Amino acid sequence: MSKIKKVAILGVGHMGGSLSLALRDKFPEVSTWGYARSKKSYDKLKRIRVLNRVERDLKKVVENADLVVLALPVEVIIVYFKRIIPFLKKEAIVFDLGSSKGAIEKSINKCLPKGVSFVGCHPLCGSEKSGAEFSKKDIYQKATCLITSSPQSKATETVKRIWEKLGSKVIFISSQRHDKFLSYLSHLPHLISFSLTDGFSKDHLKFSLQSFKDLTRISLSPASVWAEIFLSNKGNLLTDLNNFMKILKKFENLIKKNDKNKIVDLIKKINTKQKHLS
Amino acid sequence: MSKIKKVAILGVGHMGGSLSLALRDKFPEVSTWGYARSKKSYDKLKRIRVLNRVERDLKKVVENADLVVLALPVEVIIVYFKRIIPFLKKEAIVFDLGSSKGAIEKSINKCLPKGVSFVGCHPLCGSEKSGAEFSKKDIYQKATCLITSSPQSKATETVKRIWEKLGSKVIFISSQRHDKFLSYLSHLPHLISFSLTDGFSKDHLKFSLQSFKDLTRISLSPASVWAEIFLSNKGNLLTDLNNFMKILKKFENLIKKNDKNKIVDLIKKINTKQKHLS
Repeated sequence: MSKIKKVAILGVGHMGGSLSLALRDKFPEVSTWGYARSKKSYDKLKRIRVLNRVERDLKKVVENADLVVLALPVEVIIVYFKRIIPFLKKEAIVFDLGSSKGAIEKSINKCLPKGVSFVGCHPLCGSEKSGAEFSKKDIYQKATCLITSSPQSKATETVKRIWEKLGSKVIFISSQRHDKFLSYLSHLPHLISFSLTDGFSKDHLKFSLQSFKDLTRISLSPASVWAEIFLSNKGNLLTDLNNFMKILKKFENLIKKNDKNKIVDLIKKINTKQKHLS
Repeated sequence: MSKIKKVAILGVGHMGGSLSLALRDKFPEVSTWGYARSKKSYDKLKRIRVLNRVERDLKKVVENADLVVLALPVEVIIVYFKRIIPFLKKEAIVFDLGSSKGAIEKSINKCLPKGVSFVGCHPLCGSEKSGAEFSKKDIYQKATCLITSSPQSKATETVKRIWEKLGSKVIFISSQRHDKFLSYLSHLPHLISFSLTDGFSKDHLKFSLQSFKDLTRISLSPASVWAEIFLSNKGNLLTDLNNFMKILKKFENLIKKNDKNKIVDLIKKINTKQKHLS
């Protein structure tokens, strides 16, 4: 990290803002620069002081940056990467925080300028909260950070060391496996949670039932972010959703037939699975 | 409560055991008697000391009891109620803790002996843990307790005062509304959680993703209890499950069509709903 002086952050929301605070905490010599697209977000970022510098000029933010962080929604990551290519210095390292990786990796590798390195990262510490005002310097501590780029490259090694300094545990995984695994463990649960909240009507009295609260907490997650995640991991998600609906149908049929023994057997099998999981 | 000296508890698991501890704490003059069906559970209940007395003879437990608590799975509540009829003293008050109420109320009202009162209760503080060894005296504190019997009867008034003394907030609700409401806020979430855990395979690496953990926590809930709840509230649950699958299908179609704008609109609407809920 001795060479890294300037870090550019594009997309200063909860994740990007927290990353700035964490970097400033652990690397006092680093200066974090954030890009604000609108006057409104510029004013907010100035006010909440999570960055060393806020600029509305993309060129100013990116030029001479040793490290560029794309803390943006999945589709926007690709759009902004293309936009900053002319400003990237040689030997700059770019990494993202996107929740699905295959599509990003494919698009970025097609237009990666010579000398610039891209490292795909996904720290598993998202929150249903969005907005830089919720930034906290310790959200990456004890989090797992998945890196989908080759562990052999020098840039990947640098990025790995940064995450480890922030307290994260780094795991290398291919982008294919990442997307398959995230589909089941995060994208499908979000889709389920959204759907359960959607079906809530005024007929259901409002009591605090912990089970319902647990299942619907993440349905507060931001719409544009999640629409893009769903579409960028479409193949895996549709397969998982289909299998999930088959299991619901299995329960439905057993309930219709009043087949108590088979329902008990099925839940017992699930209980055992859950014990291994927790 | 001045008249209540002996309380009989049938079904000493997590809920029944905790009720015994809570009653002994708040009503020191009351003696709690628990029924153990097997030698094994008799030995366990003796060892963990959550009750004043443990008996394997149902008659001994129930005779002369002022209050009889049926802390059993839904279907078993009806079976045991019929079995204890000959032992119930005149003016005994019987209440249950079942998670669905319509079927129990209907069956018990058909065979209720003269002088005996039945009060349907459902304290909303269940847990995925089962077993009397997890009993805690404070689980009913600050919990909501739904009572589905008429608030006008003297027995209901007594039972209400007991719950309030244990720190619960009592709400009166008809058994029909109770079952409709519980179907959506508890029974469907459990069915969803079981199904999500069922689909987990070894292909999915094991990381600690909070969203997945939240959605699968309750899939540890006991099989026989939940099979009976599902069947005893079949009508409401099948309707809710069907509607839920329609919403999943809606998401599926929008994802298939890459209709980002409509997905964003749908999630935004859901975000607003969730804000009102939490």
